[in-house]
Amino acid sequence: MFRHQKELQFEVKVDRPDPMLARQVQEVLGGQFGEMTVMMQYLFQGFNCRGEEKYKDMLMDIGTEEIGHVEMLCALISQLLDGASPEAQDEAAKDPVTAAIMGGVNPQHLLVSGLGGLPSNSNGVPWNGSYIVASGNLLADMRSNLHAESQGRLQVARLYHMTTDEGVRATFRKMLARDRYHQYQWMAAIQELEEKNGVVVPATFPPEAELESQPEAYEFWNLSEGNESSEGLWATGSAPDGTGNFVYVAEPVAKGQVYKPAVPPEAIHHDLNPQNKL
Amino acid sequence: MFRHQKELQFEVKVDRPDPMLARQVQEVLGGQFGEMTVMMQYLFQGFNCRGEEKYKDMLMDIGTEEIGHVEMLCALISQLLDGASPEAQDEAAKDPVTAAIMGGVNPQHLLVSGLGGLPSNSNGVPWNGSYIVASGNLLADMRSNLHAESQGRLQVARLYHMTTDEGVRATFRKMLARDRYHQYQWMAAIQELEEKNGVVVPATFPPEAELESQPEAYEFWNLSEGNESSEGLWATGSAPDGTGNFVYVAEPVAKGQVYKPAVPPEAIHHDLNPQNKL
Amino acid sequence: MFRHQKELQFEVKVDRPDPMLARQVQEVLGGQFGEMTVMMQYLFQGFNCRGEEKYKDMLMDIGTEEIGHVEMLCALISQLLDGASPEAQDEAAKDPVTAAIMGGVNPQHLLVSGLGGLPSNSNGVPWNGSYIVASGNLLADMRSNLHAESQGRLQVARLYHMTTDEGVRATFRKMLARDRYHQYQWMAAIQELEEKNGVVVPATFPPEAELESQPEAYEFWNLSEGNESSEGLWATGSAPDGTGNFVYVAEPVAKGQVYKPAVPPEAIHHDLNPQNKL
Amino acid sequence: MFRHQKELQFEVKVDRPDPMLARQVQEVLGGQFGEMTVMMQYLFQGFNCRGEEKYKDMLMDIGTEEIGHVEMLCALISQLLDGASPEAQDEAAKDPVTAAIMGGVNPQHLLVSGLGGLPSNSNGVPWNGSYIVASGNLLADMRSNLHAESQGRLQVARLYHMTTDEGVRATFRKMLARDRYHQYQWMAAIQELEEKNGVVVPATFPPEAELESQPEAYEFWNLSEGNESSEGLWATGSAPDGTGNFVYVAEPVAKGQVYKPAVPPEAIHHDLNPQNKL
Amino acid sequence: MFRHQKELQFEVKVDRPDPMLARQVQEVLGGQFGEMTVMMQYLFQGFNCRGEEKYKDMLMDIGTEEIGHVEMLCALISQLLDGASPEAQDEAAKDPVTAAIMGGVNPQHLLVSGLGGLPSNSNGVPWNGSYIVASGNLLADMRSNLHAESQGRLQVARLYHMTTDEGVRATFRKMLARDRYHQYQWMAAIQELEEKNGVVVPATFPPEAELESQPEAYEFWNLSEGNESSEGLWATGSAPDGTGNFVYVAEPVAKGQVYKPAVPPEAIHHDLNPQNKL
Amino acid sequence: MFRHQKELQFEVKVDRPDPMLARQVQEVLGGQFGEMTVMMQYLFQGFNCRGEEKYKDMLMDIGTEEIGHVEMLCALISQLLDGASPEAQDEAAKDPVTAAIMGGVNPQHLLVSGLGGLPSNSNGVPWNGSYIVASGNLLADMRSNLHAESQGRLQVARLYHMTTDEGVRATFRKMLARDRYHQYQWMAAIQELEEKNGVVVPATFPPEAELESQPEAYEFWNLSEGNESSEGLWATGSAPDGTGNFVYVAEPVAKGQVYKPAVPPEAIHHDLNPQNKL
Repeated sequence: MFRHQKELQFEVKVDRPDPMLARQVQEVLGGQFGEMTVMMQYLFQGFNCRGEEKYKDMLMDIGTEEIGHVEMLCALISQLLDGASPEAQDEAAKDPVTAAIMGGVNPQHLLVSGLGGLPSNSNGVPWNGSYIVASGNLLADMRSNLHAESQGRLQVARLYHMTTDEGVRATFRKMLARDRYHQYQWMAAIQELEEKNGVVVPATFPPEAELESQPEAYEFWNLSEGNESSEGLWATGSAPDGTGNFVYVAEPVAKGQVYKPAVPPEAIHHDLNPQNKL
Repeated sequence: MFRHQKELQFEVKVDRPDPMLARQVQEVLGGQFGEMTVMMQYLFQGFNCRGEEKYKDMLMDIGTEEIGHVEMLCALISQLLDGASPEAQDEAAKDPVTAAIMGGVNPQHLLVSGLGGLPSNSNGVPWNGSYIVASGNLLADMRSNLHAESQGRLQVARLYHMTTDEGVRATFRKMLARDRYHQYQWMAAIQELEEKNGVVVPATFPPEAELESQPEAYEFWNLSEGNESSEGLWATGSAPDGTGNFVYVAEPVAKGQVYKPAVPPEAIHHDLNPQNKL
Repeated sequence: MFRHQKELQFEVKVDRPDPMLARQVQEVLGGQFGEMTVMMQYLFQGFNCRGEEKYKDMLMDIGTEEIGHVEMLCALISQLLDGASPEAQDEAAKDPVTAAIMGGVNPQHLLVSGLGGLPSNSNGVPWNGSYIVASGNLLADMRSNLHAESQGRLQVARLYHMTTDEGVRATFRKMLARDRYHQYQWMAAIQELEEKNGVVVPATFPPEAELESQPEAYEFWNLSEGNESSEGLWATGSAPDGTGNFVYVAEPVAKGQVYKPAVPPEAIHHDLNPQNKL
Repeated sequence: MFRHQKELQFEVKVDRPDPMLARQVQEVLGGQFGEMTVMMQYLFQGFNCRGEEKYKDMLMDIGTEEIGHVEMLCALISQLLDGASPEAQDEAAKDPVTAAIMGGVNPQHLLVSGLGGLPSNSNGVPWNGSYIVASGNLLADMRSNLHAESQGRLQVARLYHMTTDEGVRATFRKMLARDRYHQYQWMAAIQELEEKNGVVVPATFPPEAELESQPEAYEFWNLSEGNESSEGLWATGSAPDGTGNFVYVAEPVAKGQVYKPAVPPEAIHHDLNPQNKL
Repeated sequence: MFRHQKELQFEVKVDRPDPMLARQVQEVLGGQFGEMTVMMQYLFQGFNCRGEEKYKDMLMDIGTEEIGHVEMLCALISQLLDGASPEAQDEAAKDPVTAAIMGGVNPQHLLVSGLGGLPSNSNGVPWNGSYIVASGNLLADMRSNLHAESQGRLQVARLYHMTTDEGVRATFRKMLARDRYHQYQWMAAIQELEEKNGVVVPATFPPEAELESQPEAYEFWNLSEGNESSEGLWATGSAPDGTGNFVYVAEPVAKGQVYKPAVPPEAIHHDLNPQNKL
Repeated sequence: MFRHQKELQFEVKVDRPDPMLARQVQEVLGGQFGEMTVMMQYLFQGFNCRGEEKYKDMLMDIGTEEIGHVEMLCALISQLLDGASPEAQDEAAKDPVTAAIMGGVNPQHLLVSGLGGLPSNSNGVPWNGSYIVASGNLLADMRSNLHAESQGRLQVARLYHMTTDEGVRATFRKMLARDRYHQYQWMAAIQELEEKNGVVVPATFPPEAELESQPEAYEFWNLSEGNESSEGLWATGSAPDGTGNFVYVAEPVAKGQVYKPAVPPEAIHHDLNPQNKL
């Protein structure tokens, strides 16, 4: 069960409205790596967590924090939209600056939300549940969490340069600090889990079944022209868990057959084969 | 530019058709972490790669390999569907086993694709471009790649137990081996990049701007009841890059204000405030 | 079966083209509460209506009227786009006003529809079937209809202020008048149905099963800080149907357990628990 | 800012697993009118609420309660999936009952979430942001809330009959009780707002602009064969706010023109008109 | 403006309910090539048609007919669902046939639509506006129409074999007949347009600009292993409009450069290049 | 299996950056008829092709070429975005031209892809799998291919006029030439298939079943006012395959019944009918 307190986690106070910026900020609210994504992702991972109390507790801590980040971004977007009005567009025909700003505004901020944040990204595409990850395998999921915080922080950093409004930047700095901590946090959790279970997900696949395909588990297939790709750590030396050595296959040969599928039954209406009479 | 050769990368030959399994296999073809995702993700990362020849070459190698994995899965699904026919449903009313199988079949395999693979997941939801990640920041993106291979391998491992068909399992073993290699590969690439740029993404955000929010970058906020979350590596000791020490904030206090947004202009038709006359 | 007559329901004649406005108008054509939504919603409710001749007839009347509203909006958008051309963008670099207008235009009006209306909203997101409601329960559905007309009229009212073009405004005034009538209409229908069936949907749930949870059916749970929410009609007095009295629970206590889910079977590859051996 | 406590709002304890039911329950978790919808809808309405403290507080109370309902449904679905395993499908070929159950299971419960709740509906379609409503106009939005609770309660009532598991039914009874209260609550809030602002949304549209279309605001257009639709409250008597009398237009005449759009400029490549030479 | 008459275009009367078939029929109601698609496609083409009265009139005729086809399919699905009930699922555990049928039912037919047609496909994915085509270029669009009728008829033909219910089949035969006519119709219209404008869309692109790329307009590039593709009409002889002769390029050579994009500006946080200092 | 070579198929070298054009070009990369669509469409048709070696080989040739077109468009978009930066927006408030350009830029080119191509259309809507067609019936599918190349070429032609940048236009000319060839190609293939199988898809539907609906297969139903539609080839003369003569039904009469569906079982909670007691 959840509870809400009235204060925002951090202060949100912009220096001046900026409806074009409000549109861009939607990316980190309702985009693929916005706060709605990490909020729902950590909550679902927490709700579905089986058998690991300290991980579940940690997921609930962070997921609950992220609900408050969605709240902060709605406050930020509302302030950036303060004073925006439908009439501005009609005046746009007379004044290039107004016109330009109207061109860059998300029309749904005026028409749909009435100057509030929207559950959609910077192009107005609605947030959807396929952005999130909760597989039941904690190591796999925390790799997603580390990645989501990396993309999220990258996007906030890019947004930071889109404004010189010190109020907006102050909020972004708090978010960047939290995203820095969250990257550390998932790295630390991943380190714990890799030490327990090994680095390859899933860890529990039957080892005897893995044997047959042993060579393919260590080969780099050079399928694009040039062999610059032979220069990296992935091409030489041993695998990160020391279970084998990498092989750079400079001229790979297909190991499968030329596949010729069967002609389908008549009721599929494939049409081309005379023997197919209904 | 690309070229195609007729042989599949690995042999695909099922022992017997199984249209219910065909539906499940769609998850690793056209689902969030299916082969279409990694194919398009690595290709877009490669196409958009700026200034790093060996990384670009490597991305093109893997992205090109993954096109061939989509090809293999289409071959697998076609074979699992061999012999399926529309008439089976009508017979279902008479025979529980037929009925059960028809109930578990993706109707689009009969109606839409005519016994071929579909660009959609195991529930028939079409693949879409928001599954993929290509941000221009290689470390961020490779964390996504490591994660995608973790989820993909997890799902193939779960699928493996859904059949005892040795032909299907042989193909899955090859895919599991390649997904194992790909996890190693992205770990190795991430290690290289973290050594160059530091572990936090993005690395180039202006350090002076980070100072103000220094404390929040190392704090764990305990926002859910209980403090089991204080037991992990993320709660004590120093950050992975040694730049600071973690602080477990057992009883966090909100640092922001109670936010009261302004009343909107009249043309927004907020309706409730008497001073709003048009 | 349907028939079409050539005249529009109301005259559509704009004073001058305005491609930026054309983009905004898409919201009330193909957005969540646009005319496509009410058209498809009323038609599906009418097609699926079981056992109530006068309601079905009424739904078909309004649904059929709304097809004509989609037609009117396509005419309006076409006129707003008259004369727009691809070349304008290239000239934009030279002239701020042209640039601004091009920046605010929906590029698909030029590239995809060739100056016609699109089945999408003001941000170009395609209309989809999950916008509509047709549940078979008329009271539930008519509450949706009343709501949809409220949102639709609100958006047209906001659009009205985006232009001073008297031709456009004249069309909007007709639409506002119809949306006013449609709100009245659904209120009247709801009143009839509530008098027949009671105000709670569904009405026919077995009363004996409701008894057990009697108290929770009248309680307000105060889960956010502050108790301003105790001041409304929802917090005191009796329920609208007089079946009970409201209780404001100022300090609610959870009535459920701390939930600890079971560890999953091995083939799920949860990975963390050593007893899970395949 | 938000906080989480470990106890569920109400007890969730199923008598026995039932993976087919788990799939159906997804509708009220991640469907158009599931708990994710009301949770996000009330939170966004609360976050964006301008100038009405008691309404904002109330919205935050209910929105916060609904996060806990998402939590409860994840617990319910996890329990219904307990013991489900990938191997079951392979055994299905031998046993009709197993086959039937596998056919009715959401394959993503096995492959994607590892026996946890998914942010999607009973057909596996991901939840998306276009399900929710937050327009800034409280009367419009609360009509949506009343409607959403009507659909939600209707669906839970239908689900109730899909099982005789007393544990599942006990949870559903609690949800039905809360949905009953929430319907009362929105009715009460709507009554307050209609008394303040009038029944038509928006209330503040300039009255002088409404005059021109006065007649159309009270007319029912009979556009489908038959006139059973003349029998309802919407067809005779006065409007709910007494501002006018309804008129049943039995044989409506189009008031608009036959619309003939202009031929587009050459660069649109309309192709058919010889004068269009580039 | 539109009008509705109460009779269906053709009789719809199934011999017996069949909820599994109801789910499959959704494909031709709300799928990519279902009746909703052709209805909306022809209406939008008609609404947006500029300058060609007889084509516009024809599009309105067919579009209006298709609204009636949506109506017929809703009637068909309702009848196939007659008698289906939520309780059936609970009984499923006891009886394999019931279980199998429940497994194959669309749960939304019970939970969401209350035994009515849904605006979604056979897997429950909602219909969306990106299924339709209306470009303003009639020849391009009618090629889509011919294609849509081909897919639609193919799917109805496949459905036909899924049932031996003579009532259902009678309705399908009417639909197959209309789809046959509609294929003829679009062929005839295409023939007219190709005679007027030439066979390549668009026809009006400036001829002098086409000259530079003259050779590439007649070449087949053999980019997959094997040259079976040299055997078709597309590989030899002259183009359909006689403007040139086909050339089979058995060993194609790339004509472009190796592309190396520039390093991005600092605020993009590409991270890897040391000269990028903010 | 596939291989990649470093050279682009054709040279891509723009004269100067143009981020507004970059946004428009996304339509032909990730839109409904962009290169991602034809690439995935031809590859899936090829992968799923059963029993026709030369057609499969041809589909693989073209599908493989189209992967290279996606690559070219990513290169084009990257060049058009060269030098774009987040800071530009903040300067926009001071300068109308900058503001206008920022208003027309896709914010995701800055925030999400870091100046690279995106898998989405010109409004930022992600590409999805329901854009593509692969039915197993080659004639049906090749009609889609002819249509897709028609729309694609139309859109590139419209884009051509949006710029006078000679570098961009040179690339577009190559694409227009290839789209011209591809239209020829599918026409040639369709001609072959129609000669083999007849012009109506599917060809193999049982002829005896078609007889019953014979008349409806040749009738034009005039359902919109006016009879301009009687003037085309579709209204008079014989069908394209000479199997019958067209009939123009000027005043069509419905052949179906007035449909009255049955009242549903109680657990559907239809609510209105008193006999429905649980």
